[in-house]
Amino acid sequence: MTNKMQRIVLASRPRGAASSDNFRLETADIPAPGPGEVLVRTLFLSLDPYMRGRMSAAKSYSAPVEVGATMGGGTVSEVVDSNAAGVRPGDIVLGMGGWATHAVLPADQVRKVDPAVAPVSTALGVLGMPGFTGWYGLTQIGRPKPGETLVVGAATGPVGSMVGQLARAGGLRAVGVAGGAEKCRFAVEQLGFDACIDHRAHASADSLREALKDAAPDGIDIYFENVAGKTLEAVLPQMNVHGRIPLCGTVAWYQGGSDADHDQLPAAWRGILTRRLTVGGFIIADHYDRFPAFLGEVAPQVASGRIVYREDVAEGLENAPEAFLGMLKGRNFGKQLVRVAG
Amino acid sequence: MTNKMQRIVLASRPRGAASSDNFRLETADIPAPGPGEVLVRTLFLSLDPYMRGRMSAAKSYSAPVEVGATMGGGTVSEVVDSNAAGVRPGDIVLGMGGWATHAVLPADQVRKVDPAVAPVSTALGVLGMPGFTGWYGLTQIGRPKPGETLVVGAATGPVGSMVGQLARAGGLRAVGVAGGAEKCRFAVEQLGFDACIDHRAHASADSLREALKDAAPDGIDIYFENVAGKTLEAVLPQMNVHGRIPLCGTVAWYQGGSDADHDQLPAAWRGILTRRLTVGGFIIADHYDRFPAFLGEVAPQVASGRIVYREDVAEGLENAPEAFLGMLKGRNFGKQLVRVAG
Repeated sequence: MTNKMQRIVLASRPRGAASSDNFRLETADIPAPGPGEVLVRTLFLSLDPYMRGRMSAAKSYSAPVEVGATMGGGTVSEVVDSNAAGVRPGDIVLGMGGWATHAVLPADQVRKVDPAVAPVSTALGVLGMPGFTGWYGLTQIGRPKPGETLVVGAATGPVGSMVGQLARAGGLRAVGVAGGAEKCRFAVEQLGFDACIDHRAHASADSLREALKDAAPDGIDIYFENVAGKTLEAVLPQMNVHGRIPLCGTVAWYQGGSDADHDQLPAAWRGILTRRLTVGGFIIADHYDRFPAFLGEVAPQVASGRIVYREDVAEGLENAPEAFLGMLKGRNFGKQLVRVAG
Repeated sequence: MTNKMQRIVLASRPRGAASSDNFRLETADIPAPGPGEVLVRTLFLSLDPYMRGRMSAAKSYSAPVEVGATMGGGTVSEVVDSNAAGVRPGDIVLGMGGWATHAVLPADQVRKVDPAVAPVSTALGVLGMPGFTGWYGLTQIGRPKPGETLVVGAATGPVGSMVGQLARAGGLRAVGVAGGAEKCRFAVEQLGFDACIDHRAHASADSLREALKDAAPDGIDIYFENVAGKTLEAVLPQMNVHGRIPLCGTVAWYQGGSDADHDQLPAAWRGILTRRLTVGGFIIADHYDRFPAFLGEVAPQVASGRIVYREDVAEGLENAPEAFLGMLKGRNFGKQLVRVAG
């Protein structure tokens, strides 16, 4: 084992859309763990849309990454060295190792992952933060009822695919929106969505709305919002009275905002009023007290194959920026991961 | 008693802002009540912002008024003739008599008003639909907790003044927004608001926001939304995490939409997400099962003077259009009524 590690730091803050210039690959000495800490070797790095927000200095729900600092992120890692009781070399742990080949983490901030339950990468996706986000938002804010209709964007992503499968299992009509015919086919054939609309085939929100009318002929009771943009614009007028909108992401706007030529807020606000909607913003980090309930319900279904998931794995830490930028454009197909070590 | 009545009909639908040309005063024969109906003589007509929506053909939560038909509206009236058991001439009743000196109403759609409890006009304001709107939205959607801060617009109107007084009584800091120094003085001195901001003194949302920072130094936990526009724009960035926005009106936008030069929806949506807000649209007509609870709680406080109210009374049915148009511009000071007969 060499005593050098690699990491990707935030080289500069994006102006408008993020680009590869905003990242820099660096080499550094592998640090030694202090008391109560563990040294881990990253196996998988999770790439998630929220990271775009942390690249900017603007106030958000988590502190921005400092320029020159390592990009943060969830990781599944192997413990290499431990100064903490209960964690041993060879253990596989979930933690916030960041965009790096190695990390020193407080032992009380890692959680052991059992490779016997499911492939360890699932701790970053279907059985991790994104899957939990879908489960929590749907069950706690969406409050689904059999016979209702649900719409979710990024339907083949780790949040959308959880939401759609849980909705179907709960007796709802599940309509996905995804980018591309192949993703839509996967959503219907593998994930069990009743219908999936390819937003790339609809240049305007009006056109997308017409497709939604066909796919959701009884209107929409729950719109699980993780994309915003054109999808939101198309969905809102189709919402049924007393509909619910769990809101956990607006990824279509992360790279530069709306391209609408007018203020859409009055119509949105009026829609919420006249349709008596409830819009509930949530940040999953607030709700980890419910994580055991989520795992208890969902892990057996993943193990049995009843809940399907798909991963999109980039190879090598050096390819993380490209994979991340592609994900913001919807180029990933399934949960975006980086395999940092084999 | 003459056998002629007067009524105001919708002469044409507004294009942009409503104007007096959209209304026409007509004379007609007084109709006779059929079986189960009562003939009433209007004492007070209520003018309410929702009526602007019904002048347009666009889909809303209630059907539009047809061109040529009498403008609808809540009334307090005296029964003149009755073909229904239990309702007698001389009874004072609340009903939907509309913009007219007389009306025939189904007896099962009127509710007797007891003049001994409070002046009968209060059945259209503090003890009627607007007061109930404030009570319901605050208690059921706002879920106030002592020590929190609440902001409400149109603070001296019948909804805002109810919200502010209930909030204060519940141990919240109550900050009003109103149009003009005189209204703000009334809000603080008579209604008991902790502070009131004159939005006419702030040309921009930014300026209004700075004033809000002073008036609500700990941020805003509940924004009771009945005005939207510049107030909403100023309030949203000041909302605290886990804040609530009961949404029952957007009157600033009723007469022609936003004057913003950009799409404000992305920032609003992102604010709801990052601050984990709950926005709950509601239409009070859905919730009349709670009306007895409201009256039971609030009527004694109105009778005792603990809850204060203010009315702005226009004289004569023929002046209803002008009073209504003025109300949409915030020219009323208190609940807008028309005294149709003395």
